[in-house]
Amino acid sequence: MGPDPAAGLAVPALVDHHCHGVVAAELADDALAGLLTESDRPPAPGCSPFDSALGLAVRRWCPPALGLPAHAPAAAYLARRRELGAAEATRRLLAAARLDTCLVDTGLTAAAGHALLPPSELAEAAGALVREVVRLETVAEAVPAGAGDWPRAVAEALAAAATGAVAVKSVLAYRHGLAVPAERPARAAVVAAAGARLRAGRTRLTDPVLLHHLLWTAVDVCAELRLPLQLHTGFGDPDLDLHRADPSLLADFVRAAEPGGVPLVLLHGYPYHRQAGWLAQAFPTVYTDLGLTASYTGPRVAAVLGEMLELAPFGKLLFSTDAYGLPELFLVGAEQFRHGLGAVLAEWQADGACSAADARRIAERIAADNARRLYAL
Amino acid sequence: MGPDPAAGLAVPALVDHHCHGVVAAELADDALAGLLTESDRPPAPGCSPFDSALGLAVRRWCPPALGLPAHAPAAAYLARRRELGAAEATRRLLAAARLDTCLVDTGLTAAAGHALLPPSELAEAAGALVREVVRLETVAEAVPAGAGDWPRAVAEALAAAATGAVAVKSVLAYRHGLAVPAERPARAAVVAAAGARLRAGRTRLTDPVLLHHLLWTAVDVCAELRLPLQLHTGFGDPDLDLHRADPSLLADFVRAAEPGGVPLVLLHGYPYHRQAGWLAQAFPTVYTDLGLTASYTGPRVAAVLGEMLELAPFGKLLFSTDAYGLPELFLVGAEQFRHGLGAVLAEWQADGACSAADARRIAERIAADNARRLYAL
Amino acid sequence: MGPDPAAGLAVPALVDHHCHGVVAAELADDALAGLLTESDRPPAPGCSPFDSALGLAVRRWCPPALGLPAHAPAAAYLARRRELGAAEATRRLLAAARLDTCLVDTGLTAAAGHALLPPSELAEAAGALVREVVRLETVAEAVPAGAGDWPRAVAEALAAAATGAVAVKSVLAYRHGLAVPAERPARAAVVAAAGARLRAGRTRLTDPVLLHHLLWTAVDVCAELRLPLQLHTGFGDPDLDLHRADPSLLADFVRAAEPGGVPLVLLHGYPYHRQAGWLAQAFPTVYTDLGLTASYTGPRVAAVLGEMLELAPFGKLLFSTDAYGLPELFLVGAEQFRHGLGAVLAEWQADGACSAADARRIAERIAADNARRLYAL
Repeated sequence: MGPDPAAGLAVPALVDHHCHGVVAAELADDALAGLLTESDRPPAPGCSPFDSALGLAVRRWCPPALGLPAHAPAAAYLARRRELGAAEATRRLLAAARLDTCLVDTGLTAAAGHALLPPSELAEAAGALVREVVRLETVAEAVPAGAGDWPRAVAEALAAAATGAVAVKSVLAYRHGLAVPAERPARAAVVAAAGARLRAGRTRLTDPVLLHHLLWTAVDVCAELRLPLQLHTGFGDPDLDLHRADPSLLADFVRAAEPGGVPLVLLHGYPYHRQAGWLAQAFPTVYTDLGLTASYTGPRVAAVLGEMLELAPFGKLLFSTDAYGLPELFLVGAEQFRHGLGAVLAEWQADGACSAADARRIAERIAADNARRLYAL
Repeated sequence: MGPDPAAGLAVPALVDHHCHGVVAAELADDALAGLLTESDRPPAPGCSPFDSALGLAVRRWCPPALGLPAHAPAAAYLARRRELGAAEATRRLLAAARLDTCLVDTGLTAAAGHALLPPSELAEAAGALVREVVRLETVAEAVPAGAGDWPRAVAEALAAAATGAVAVKSVLAYRHGLAVPAERPARAAVVAAAGARLRAGRTRLTDPVLLHHLLWTAVDVCAELRLPLQLHTGFGDPDLDLHRADPSLLADFVRAAEPGGVPLVLLHGYPYHRQAGWLAQAFPTVYTDLGLTASYTGPRVAAVLGEMLELAPFGKLLFSTDAYGLPELFLVGAEQFRHGLGAVLAEWQADGACSAADARRIAERIAADNARRLYAL
Repeated sequence: MGPDPAAGLAVPALVDHHCHGVVAAELADDALAGLLTESDRPPAPGCSPFDSALGLAVRRWCPPALGLPAHAPAAAYLARRRELGAAEATRRLLAAARLDTCLVDTGLTAAAGHALLPPSELAEAAGALVREVVRLETVAEAVPAGAGDWPRAVAEALAAAATGAVAVKSVLAYRHGLAVPAERPARAAVVAAAGARLRAGRTRLTDPVLLHHLLWTAVDVCAELRLPLQLHTGFGDPDLDLHRADPSLLADFVRAAEPGGVPLVLLHGYPYHRQAGWLAQAFPTVYTDLGLTASYTGPRVAAVLGEMLELAPFGKLLFSTDAYGLPELFLVGAEQFRHGLGAVLAEWQADGACSAADARRIAERIAADNARRLYAL
């Protein structure tokens, strides 16, 4: 690997171990911009989601894929995208991302009110192998069952859904936060809580007893099927209480689940990615990820990625785009990673901190090898 | 904007959206040094507040304004300052800051035992337009009222004080921390707490029920007068429990206050400025700020400012000095911002992350445009 | 100090104010690698502790001391180490660290199942002056006493152990976390908790009442003997609940202990080192430290050290290696510090943020002067 970051990381194939589908339909400009922020609200006066670190990254990497110069203004980019049509733009952007494999969380089926491309069509448009990640809470919320049957029914539904998938994913961070007790909830408490939910006619799972039971159900199913369990951690949309999504809150659960050997993959983590790195070093079962952090921090990707590499073992950090809704986010995620990791490793070599061979090996691991080993791809 | 950071940011006018008055009197050396630290205690053995990141910044930017070379020793600087006299030194330092507009928190009226210049005299010395920010707790603590009258009396006092001001500011972070419940306190609880305070003969407001009621009173008054509400977050003096000043603890309050549309401006934030950036991205009503972080981190300003720009929308980050007591802190705050943001944006351009036009626009927004729009200046 | 970081910091002598002993015996490769991670578990599939930021630092600094080129592969390094024998390798590595003085925590007497060199032999091998740091909880756990006698007996044992030592150290962060109440536990509560521990036949101290009483006992003994009290904060092994080791949780205790004047030295701190820096600025009694952070973050040492220097007064940050078990960790800790601080200060000078004289003075303080003053060496 030479001092040119881009050259250095041109080689490794990319396995995107956590992403979502993209909208196939034409999107209005506002709807498209609305997918460039974690906010689900209208922008504040004078603000556009393009005026952000992520917006800069989109304008850096995407216009060239549509035949415009890098840093083309947002309006020019949107006009060109309309001119090409959503299908052609999607095809170009996904192809430019040069992804080898995508592990798709199928728990979300729409964005900005439009259906997402099903995995098979995403695979074709991206020219990538696509495998499924099952979303725990989505599966459980679709289970019709009486309170007494609920534990068995969700376990069966999850086992059925996860068969053939490569991982299970939990969004517990959004629902109640990551301070999970060390003990599994007692069966009686679970049945009581399931009954209360049934009587209240709620679909959405927010009760901590049910959520924690569900997490342990996922541990059991993953142990049986030999799958990793992905957990959202760190920043997300306005639903989230950020401080409850600190992955270090998971320590009791991590220790309790450790004997079963199920790998726990902490997604994103920012701004608690250093905490996630410590967990990955301290516990053999814990892995961590770049996720949407690499895209959302735009010009700062190398600095943030450097922070992730402080404590996380090089065999336990994984590349992902967490792209959702827009094909742009696949291209941005991939290029931000190539550029950012290239910059980090070029700096390390220039500083004498590692050899060219070390740098190449680190890049290959994070780009693909760690994911291939972890998900048995 | 070229690769020279200083040149790049020479243009934008600066609106300092949060600062305090300065001492007009001559200060003893120790008293002056005591205003260069968040501590209100005597320094530890062998330590001087000048031996710090902020001290380096003072010695970098201030000696030239008084006719000495940059990095002059502290003793030489203090001698030169005495030689010129406080009035002349103040005039020179404030003029060198080249501030366009200052929004002054008038809640503090003294520093190191000396009166602060009133806003009108600060305006004249700085050659800047000065507008007032009203401090919520200071106004409320001056209200004489029986328990039953307290809610109405503080609302009236705040409305009166805020009329003609450009914002209200709360120091709740110092008094009880930022974990504000989503619900307004019940009137009966407020009256009971006001009665207890009255019986105890306390002036200082520390009861959480009264503090939370007061915050909601500020929301109401700000909504009525169409003013933003500033909130201290992050580091400060030894009174503070730092972990209770994490702005992410405000999420329940932010969501509860959102329908009223009052802008909430999170001041300083460090070391939780990434959390503040997320809130600014997730919620249209939330803004965030540089504040004393840019001055106190001295040589590290570009790195910290880079972190602030990771998630905060470019239309929602605001420049301020948070200068208090010393005219040096106005000059340091302004130069640290010009130099630090210049360095960040020069690096982004050199890296290909944004265009020169993008960099110029980002600088103009943070320097002044965002404040002008937010405070309707 | 010139622009060459290595040259710039070749001068200052190093006082390592917090470290442990090293294993004198030959270690199997796995056992040696096991001392290069905070984990006490076997590595995850495909992972070796050498594949980490710390592993890169070991391969950077240690092979040359054994006659191999920097960045030699781990296997080649381990083979060469065996060829030389543990005693000769230890002598070479410790000598290469060029340490002036080591303050050794004697609370741990073994690593990887092997005895550690006693302080006198470490002194000889390193060519350094060695002084003792007494570990609070280890002393207290060795005290045989009835419940009613326990408070007096541990105070006497600690006073005896600390006489002749240079500091007392607490690992409360591991046992119950750092949220220590402002009030000393009542004597009756302490006796009751000591009785419960006695009846349960426990040696290990985990009861918060006993731990907090012990901390105050240490404050008293340190005040009497005029010694500083070191506290583990931040990351560590899997025993730890990371979020409970945030030093900002100590604020109530810091304020309560302040009148006694005992210096409190916050070790490591990462990823809460910015919080530690604030405490060191706000409270005259608080000091902070580099510790194992400088070694474990490998290529990132300059960035992390920069963060420590944002708020911590230059007279209150101390160098240490926190080396434990391996002589490699003394050499890595010393070289990481020389290189990292050299890089930080060279960058500051290049940026115009400080003068060469300032940089030299900062380096001398952190390297040795602060420790000499604090521990009266």
